[in-house]
Amino acid sequence: SGLVLVKNPHLDQMEEDVLYHLDLGTKTHNLPAMFGDVKFVCVGGSPRRMRAFAQFMQRELGLAGPGEDVADICAGSDRYAMYRAGPVLSVSHGMGIPSISIMLHELIKLLHHAKCRDVTIIRIGTSGGLGIEPGSVVITDTAVDSSFQPRFEQVVLDDVVVRSTELDKGLAEELLACSRDIPDFPTLIGHTMCTYDFYEGQGRLDGALCSFSSEKKLEYLRRAYDAGVRNIEMESTAFAALCGLCGLKGESCRFHLL
Amino acid sequence: SGLVLVKNPHLDQMEEDVLYHLDLGTKTHNLPAMFGDVKFVCVGGSPRRMRAFAQFMQRELGLAGPGEDVADICAGSDRYAMYRAGPVLSVSHGMGIPSISIMLHELIKLLHHAKCRDVTIIRIGTSGGLGIEPGSVVITDTAVDSSFQPRFEQVVLDDVVVRSTELDKGLAEELLACSRDIPDFPTLIGHTMCTYDFYEGQGRLDGALCSFSSEKKLEYLRRAYDAGVRNIEMESTAFAALCGLCGLKGESCRFHLL
Repeated sequence: SGLVLVKNPHLDQMEEDVLYHLDLGTKTHNLPAMFGDVKFVCVGGSPRRMRAFAQFMQRELGLAGPGEDVADICAGSDRYAMYRAGPVLSVSHGMGIPSISIMLHELIKLLHHAKCRDVTIIRIGTSGGLGIEPGSVVITDTAVDSSFQPRFEQVVLDDVVVRSTELDKGLAEELLACSRDIPDFPTLIGHTMCTYDFYEGQGRLDGALCSFSSEKKLEYLRRAYDAGVRNIEMESTAFAALCGLCGLKGESCRFHLL
Repeated sequence: SGLVLVKNPHLDQMEEDVLYHLDLGTKTHNLPAMFGDVKFVCVGGSPRRMRAFAQFMQRELGLAGPGEDVADICAGSDRYAMYRAGPVLSVSHGMGIPSISIMLHELIKLLHHAKCRDVTIIRIGTSGGLGIEPGSVVITDTAVDSSFQPRFEQVVLDDVVVRSTELDKGLAEELLACSRDIPDFPTLIGHTMCTYDFYEGQGRLDGALCSFSSEKKLEYLRRAYDAGVRNIEMESTAFAALCGLCGLKGESCRFHLL
């Protein structure tokens, strides 16, 4: 049916669903009227960038004159920012798996309550590249963990549940096809490694703590490259797992900054 | 010597240290002049709350008249917000272990470069309480993981390193003594459980996914209570581990909202 799925039998019995971190709710807001026609959701770490992206989309879609501003739909909360440009929703998620998970749980419920259909979700942003040209865009086929495995370990109470992290291959190919019209950005499809830590977890030598040598770092990154990893970031496994379980056609598309 | 320690032999060889997510650096800013006299750092998730806290501290310390504003020292970045009120620094860290870890790595390097001495760091904010009165404040003696163990598992490249999560017991007692002068807030010392997830990880029945029953949830929370857990949040184990390793006298102090 193309509807966004929630997999929670308790939700039907709730009189009200408060999407606390988005400052939205089923009793306080008419979610179908506000969001029912959303077809694309783009998510990224930084609120300012997601605002700039919504402004860009407004211009691209001919929806606003220059200088016209977009309003933060979640202005009542400073946890996340959300903007709209026609059928495109632009939402920030902060940094790391726990932060994106909270946002995705509430976003998925929002799309479910709003009865949205055939929604595509794309994660955009920056990442560290691995053996690729600076300025490249990596489209993720599979998100992998720090052992290069295509899995997301979710702790449910005190059990560990392993979830798949495959993303939509058809969507990845579509995005790659789009990139052929933009000569300035080399674009490739590859694995994206997701870590819980920016410094010790990604082999950086400039954190407050560092117990490994430059050689050990390079050896690890070489093994990652050999396993098919082309970029490293901090959200993709949780993003892939949650989107996959809830019927959202999802993709991660990262710009390699340095 | 009371100095903040970094445990990274590579740092000495770096010509410049850019604290990227704070928009500060050793060449662009005179860190000893800006921060050398900082004695207290208070950190919390929400940027707005950390701004309100800095304004409150300014008033309490008699440093500013009413209506006078505090400036965001990290205004060039939207990842974190930082404010100053005399010897007190107030910094936001977003939600979850990965987000607080990035901030703490860069904050610890900042305090190190600024040659700060005898710094006390206190994490303030809200949390979910367990078997305690709403409106209570929990001062953490030990942060525990979702199996109620006092440990933080840090992935370093692809190795897992286990770190201690004990906090400063003397500081916890000092804070408890302070609380005796404030009759409105019941205050107690207990274990704080730190999870990677707000919904499935903390037994919430209202996420986009929920595979457990209300009974299973209560049974888990009861076991947590029996293990000494009095509140649940998403940053304390990483906070305790990093502060402990870097010689920061640290404590976590959470207000139980609901």
